[in-house]
Amino acid sequence: MTEASVPFRAQKGLAGVSVADTKISKSGHDGSLVYRGYPISEIAANAGYEETAWLILNGKLPTKSELESFTRQLRSESVMDERIFAIMRELGNRAHPVDVIRTAVSALGSIDDKRSVADQEISVESKMSVLAANCLRVPRGEAPRRPKDGLGFSDNLLHMLTERESDKYERWVFERVLIFYLEHDMNASSFTVRVVASTLADPYAAAAAGMASLKGPLHGGANEAAMGMLLEVGDPARASEFLDTSFKQGRKVMGFGHRIYKDFDPRARLCKEYLGEMLRRRGQDDRLYRLCDALEKEMWEKKRIPPNLDFYAAPIFYLLGIEVPLYTPIFAASRVFGWMAHYNEQIEDNKLIRPDSIYIGPTDLKYTPLERR
Amino acid sequence: MTEASVPFRAQKGLAGVSVADTKISKSGHDGSLVYRGYPISEIAANAGYEETAWLILNGKLPTKSELESFTRQLRSESVMDERIFAIMRELGNRAHPVDVIRTAVSALGSIDDKRSVADQEISVESKMSVLAANCLRVPRGEAPRRPKDGLGFSDNLLHMLTERESDKYERWVFERVLIFYLEHDMNASSFTVRVVASTLADPYAAAAAGMASLKGPLHGGANEAAMGMLLEVGDPARASEFLDTSFKQGRKVMGFGHRIYKDFDPRARLCKEYLGEMLRRRGQDDRLYRLCDALEKEMWEKKRIPPNLDFYAAPIFYLLGIEVPLYTPIFAASRVFGWMAHYNEQIEDNKLIRPDSIYIGPTDLKYTPLERR
Repeated sequence: MTEASVPFRAQKGLAGVSVADTKISKSGHDGSLVYRGYPISEIAANAGYEETAWLILNGKLPTKSELESFTRQLRSESVMDERIFAIMRELGNRAHPVDVIRTAVSALGSIDDKRSVADQEISVESKMSVLAANCLRVPRGEAPRRPKDGLGFSDNLLHMLTERESDKYERWVFERVLIFYLEHDMNASSFTVRVVASTLADPYAAAAAGMASLKGPLHGGANEAAMGMLLEVGDPARASEFLDTSFKQGRKVMGFGHRIYKDFDPRARLCKEYLGEMLRRRGQDDRLYRLCDALEKEMWEKKRIPPNLDFYAAPIFYLLGIEVPLYTPIFAASRVFGWMAHYNEQIEDNKLIRPDSIYIGPTDLKYTPLERR
Repeated sequence: MTEASVPFRAQKGLAGVSVADTKISKSGHDGSLVYRGYPISEIAANAGYEETAWLILNGKLPTKSELESFTRQLRSESVMDERIFAIMRELGNRAHPVDVIRTAVSALGSIDDKRSVADQEISVESKMSVLAANCLRVPRGEAPRRPKDGLGFSDNLLHMLTERESDKYERWVFERVLIFYLEHDMNASSFTVRVVASTLADPYAAAAAGMASLKGPLHGGANEAAMGMLLEVGDPARASEFLDTSFKQGRKVMGFGHRIYKDFDPRARLCKEYLGEMLRRRGQDDRLYRLCDALEKEMWEKKRIPPNLDFYAAPIFYLLGIEVPLYTPIFAASRVFGWMAHYNEQIEDNKLIRPDSIYIGPTDLKYTPLERR
């Protein structure tokens, strides 16, 4: 059967159309999420970031020596060509962080265009963190922050983002949030990466395209917008009124709803626990927790829509002292590992992703000279 | 019906799956190609580049004043922020032209992040030509070439590429080739652009992602590779032997075959005519034409595969004195108009392009501590 005779019609947004068989991850309508076969709760309770990234990339948990070697490689690949910082500086202090990172990843791809696919992958995985930590600073003309020896991936990113010492529990929580952002089956950026991978473009090109899709408000920016909303509402007692006003004005309530999770997002549930525990341990006013909880309860009451990961990741980042415009860059710094897993799965059994379209216009118009139009 | 219950299975490469209804263009198995309803032969015989670009973007031929205003806008938007050239220089003289252009488009998006979608579109359409003409020169440290007042889009690009005066017929031919590269329904880069557009990312982000997909040898680079092959074969008498050797070695013959056109590519046919006429008018040895013709005939004889546009565009560019690594950048300089037409069609009736995947791995593995692996 030739391609044209396949009897599908235009499937808007490709909703429900499966573009690949995958072994990477699976989210379910029942609030389940597995990474390479492991339920997210198993991973969250037990695994470290590098371990989980290795699992997502390789399909099984690493041995001790595999883990050590991966950690070492990530550390050694983080050294950045100074030209990348120079390019980031050129973009100036009003540059959007996602634009800055996309441009830097693209430039990295140009500078490092000769190495193997595997080398380019670990390079972009490692350097995305450094870009995330510097995407605001360097365009402002501040000195780049660089990873420190002796810190793991997650601790290093947190340290570069905030340049302060966090306590052990809070570092553990940050690592959990990174783990939750690592991968989520066929999301829009991972699909973009697969489309570009299917042309056999290199990993940097694919990651730059992934970043391009994160510029869109329908995919990136949700955790930042959720934090903006939390700061706007401020008081738990205002939750119900805020939601009513939002509904009346047709304004989107940020951090709620998900294409897959209709009852609950398992990652949001865990983050909510961590948020509560962080505040308990700090002995701090728990208003931020009560605010989130009130919005969650009212939203469920009124619309039966649960909060998603972004809703509970945002206040955690906020408590950790991370600037709000860095939330999407953090997402990218973790998701790039998922992107590379999709890149590999795509090229291992590749067919160029090249759909059809249905032409609904005329076909036999005659050219009219300019004078007669 | 929820998305998960839609009964499609993984459709590898999305072959035959229609992702959109479109009014932009249609290629047919019978060797037909229409741009917004006009057969490509009508356009090739009558229209100029700006006129065709406007048609593709707006769905109808422009009036005189629409055409003048579009031409003026394209000209005025071509002025480049010097920071873009600085960034291109940073990439150095070994940079791949496609990487350079992708990085520059991404940087443009960062610098010009505040204007309207329409303004950003005409900006990237206009500036892609300047990037194409400078993607080799500027990273080598040479001075940028800029468009001249009083020349149209196609003449300006040709002049920037070669910096010499071409005769009228040859300029007309170059404009035809640009027109043929302008748009071609749901090709891999246009689909990439639509995926990114569907997140509501801005036009520059979408164009940067389009450039990312052109880095892949399954989509970009074909015209350059075809020229490399023509130079390698050299003598028409060697055509048959060259093809036999290629088949034996499993080496791909460049510039032949197309997903849609099985008998002939209408654009290749026209370019072949132009190539012959160019050589006749020059009164030059017609060996290049005879070489192409011999390869075409032998390939049809042996495999029943026709040449595509890239096969005949390449020798035309060669005769015009354009450096071979600039052939794919020329493609991009023209195709960006098609990309923007797809961008607009996507966002006018948008749904996030977010397909499904079929998870074929396990779901209930238990975490094993590191010591026991």
